[in-house]
Amino acid sequence: MRPVSYEPIEGSRGVFEGTGTEESPRGVGEMAERARAAARALAPMPLQMRDAALEAIAVTLIVQQEVLLAANAVDLALADAMVATGELSAANRARLGLTAAKLAEMAAQVRAVGELPDPLGRRLDAIELDRGLDLEKRSVPLGVLAVIFEARPDAVTQISALALKSGNAVVLKPGREVERTAAALVELIREAVRSVGVPAEAVSVLFGREAVAELLTLSSLVDLVIPRGSRALVEHIQATTRIPVLGHADGICHIYVDREVEQELALAVIDDAKTDYPAVCNAAETVLVHEAVAGDFLPALVTRLGVKGVTLLGDSGVRDRLPRALAEQVGEVQDWHTEYGDLTLALRVVASLDAAIEHIHRFGSAHTESICTSDPAAAERFLQEVDAASVMVNASTRFADGFRYGLGAEVGVSTSRIHARGPVGLEGLTTTKYLLRGHGHVAGDYRGPGARAFTHRRG
Amino acid sequence: MRPVSYEPIEGSRGVFEGTGTEESPRGVGEMAERARAAARALAPMPLQMRDAALEAIAVTLIVQQEVLLAANAVDLALADAMVATGELSAANRARLGLTAAKLAEMAAQVRAVGELPDPLGRRLDAIELDRGLDLEKRSVPLGVLAVIFEARPDAVTQISALALKSGNAVVLKPGREVERTAAALVELIREAVRSVGVPAEAVSVLFGREAVAELLTLSSLVDLVIPRGSRALVEHIQATTRIPVLGHADGICHIYVDREVEQELALAVIDDAKTDYPAVCNAAETVLVHEAVAGDFLPALVTRLGVKGVTLLGDSGVRDRLPRALAEQVGEVQDWHTEYGDLTLALRVVASLDAAIEHIHRFGSAHTESICTSDPAAAERFLQEVDAASVMVNASTRFADGFRYGLGAEVGVSTSRIHARGPVGLEGLTTTKYLLRGHGHVAGDYRGPGARAFTHRRG
Repeated sequence: MRPVSYEPIEGSRGVFEGTGTEESPRGVGEMAERARAAARALAPMPLQMRDAALEAIAVTLIVQQEVLLAANAVDLALADAMVATGELSAANRARLGLTAAKLAEMAAQVRAVGELPDPLGRRLDAIELDRGLDLEKRSVPLGVLAVIFEARPDAVTQISALALKSGNAVVLKPGREVERTAAALVELIREAVRSVGVPAEAVSVLFGREAVAELLTLSSLVDLVIPRGSRALVEHIQATTRIPVLGHADGICHIYVDREVEQELALAVIDDAKTDYPAVCNAAETVLVHEAVAGDFLPALVTRLGVKGVTLLGDSGVRDRLPRALAEQVGEVQDWHTEYGDLTLALRVVASLDAAIEHIHRFGSAHTESICTSDPAAAERFLQEVDAASVMVNASTRFADGFRYGLGAEVGVSTSRIHARGPVGLEGLTTTKYLLRGHGHVAGDYRGPGARAFTHRRG
Repeated sequence: MRPVSYEPIEGSRGVFEGTGTEESPRGVGEMAERARAAARALAPMPLQMRDAALEAIAVTLIVQQEVLLAANAVDLALADAMVATGELSAANRARLGLTAAKLAEMAAQVRAVGELPDPLGRRLDAIELDRGLDLEKRSVPLGVLAVIFEARPDAVTQISALALKSGNAVVLKPGREVERTAAALVELIREAVRSVGVPAEAVSVLFGREAVAELLTLSSLVDLVIPRGSRALVEHIQATTRIPVLGHADGICHIYVDREVEQELALAVIDDAKTDYPAVCNAAETVLVHEAVAGDFLPALVTRLGVKGVTLLGDSGVRDRLPRALAEQVGEVQDWHTEYGDLTLALRVVASLDAAIEHIHRFGSAHTESICTSDPAAAERFLQEVDAASVMVNASTRFADGFRYGLGAEVGVSTSRIHARGPVGLEGLTTTKYLLRGHGHVAGDYRGPGARAFTHRRG
């Protein structure tokens, strides 16, 4: 068993050098150049080779568990000290730990990515431009990804697996509480992929703010940045790099209860959307209720959510429709564009479907919006007119997720409209390439007197 | 006939206010907000309505030609003065003028966009998540586009037509030499689209650097910036905005002449790729020749292109393979990453296909690359391994163009890997929306003991 090394360069932070026999990159720029070269070598590799790399990673997670647990123990000892001083919460500490069972689960996750259909080489279009001149549009890897993520060991293997499956090289920047674990994981991942002929430089890791800042300047070497984390992180990165960023800033999701509605259905949907997992971006933050049903519906809603410990906020329009005892449970709403991220829900009465859509467009984050209605016309209008990544009818906003959507794995959720929107699967890590096969065709022949005509036949 | 007004605000530059009866926006922010509202109103409008708007624009270009020619006459008078002082070239002056025939051609272009297939509402995916819980992924408009373009009147109508066809609102920033013409065109376009029920604010225009700079700060209101113009313009905009930019920085295209090649075919392809239209981005800048055929091929190439007036550049590897008389025609190449954009071509001898690919990756701009070969294995390797938006076999790089590719209309060419790559048609102006239709489905039912299973059936 080989030793795990963690040798930061230039003081205490920098890029991970590995202990392999290959030359080690001496800085962020060199690491990114090697990642670009690895990406170009990886791109044409067949599916079997990429899947073999994932299998090799899965195997090493089991075989090398002692190495990994030893590295993790160092992170945990430091984390315990941080918990003692209040620098780290117990909840965040709980995510850092590796066990044999956790490693087995991580290996299974990597194999599950291996079983997904190949996102590469899909024939997205095929057009005959003229006889013997055939155009094809194919899915190909993006190139080099930079992923900045939370302090979770399983994120290292999952992100590496997604990147390799889609033929991309990846530079990882893990949360600082798992740096030693991540370094050990990446070293083993590099050995594993090299053992099947995939370049080790396809996966690399760096630490520290300065190294990330340098990476984000390398717009010719990095094709996409994926920040996983807080809105502040995403916005900071968007503001400081010219590289495209895949991420979501906010999840201010609404549920609109229409005038024609099955009350029980709406209560169940809202309950789930708020309480199933309040901290995530697809949880609901605001419920809009049509004034025609507010007098009936609001008391039932406040009662049901009150039992679940939900803090309810509203304005006088809401309180006026509640018996005094329930009205007293509803605090004053401060604004309509807060992502509470906890068991807090804002309520508002609206005069119409139009007013609901207007509220959603004004205060929402275009993430996920849902209507509860038994009126098919209202449902269709909501689906058509609401401008968001996911728009739903009679379903909980919590379904907006790559796994639930059947994408197999979730790379992230995008509230951008560019490149990928909503839950992003492996497809979001691909781009396209036009392939044109001719027999000496020249453009000048298609112009002027006696010009040839394009056939433009789709095949 | 209504008068054309051009009333800049706040001194000499600003947004065009129009003379319609609607309230006029008083600044860039308000214009962008109105564009956002118009985009939301436009998005669900059916194809017939969007096409009716294009037809109304085509009609107004003919019916209102006197108004347009009068506005254009003012621009032309100013342009003539600029030509006299040397501020404007005669070639650029020639692009500014409107005539009845030119207006008819512009109307025909707008109608041609109307005849393209609808880019919206395409069902890109459909998955049953569970019984009664159906997910659909549809193409929808991006929202608000900002297009910064050259001083050409026809660009105003063409860009407006592409935006409206794809359900987007657009803010136009024309070159300053056509401001009066553009203002008149936009006013008529707004009237025309309003006449069929499409919001006039879907098309607006602004002038001056300060107004553009303000627009580029409005990242919550503008979804995509399309700069049409020089590399310097594209790079300046990329550096100054957080809004995604669709554009290409460079077109450094190569043709590689393989060791097994039909010499006549390669000569014809190179001739076309260099001389058909040297100023555009898909013209070739460098030819790489395999050393095994260089001794035969280079003399033939230098002779053929010399006759066409092409300035040839190379190094000693090239000159050593030429008879002295031809070697003297080949100047010294300064570097391998210049986009000449004129009748200049760099030549280099390479030792192998791998060396050619390495040169292309090192010095190319990932725009369009072509191989001339009769070896199918070399052709496939080149197609697979070369990382570029378009990769070709035995065809001129000049085919890399939206019209030739059968996309119907070209929004631009993208050398980005994100969102759209290569020639971009109407599809590049769309994004996606997930629609989920349920019957009270909640996420909590799919977890824990007795959990329901997703079916994830693609339909």
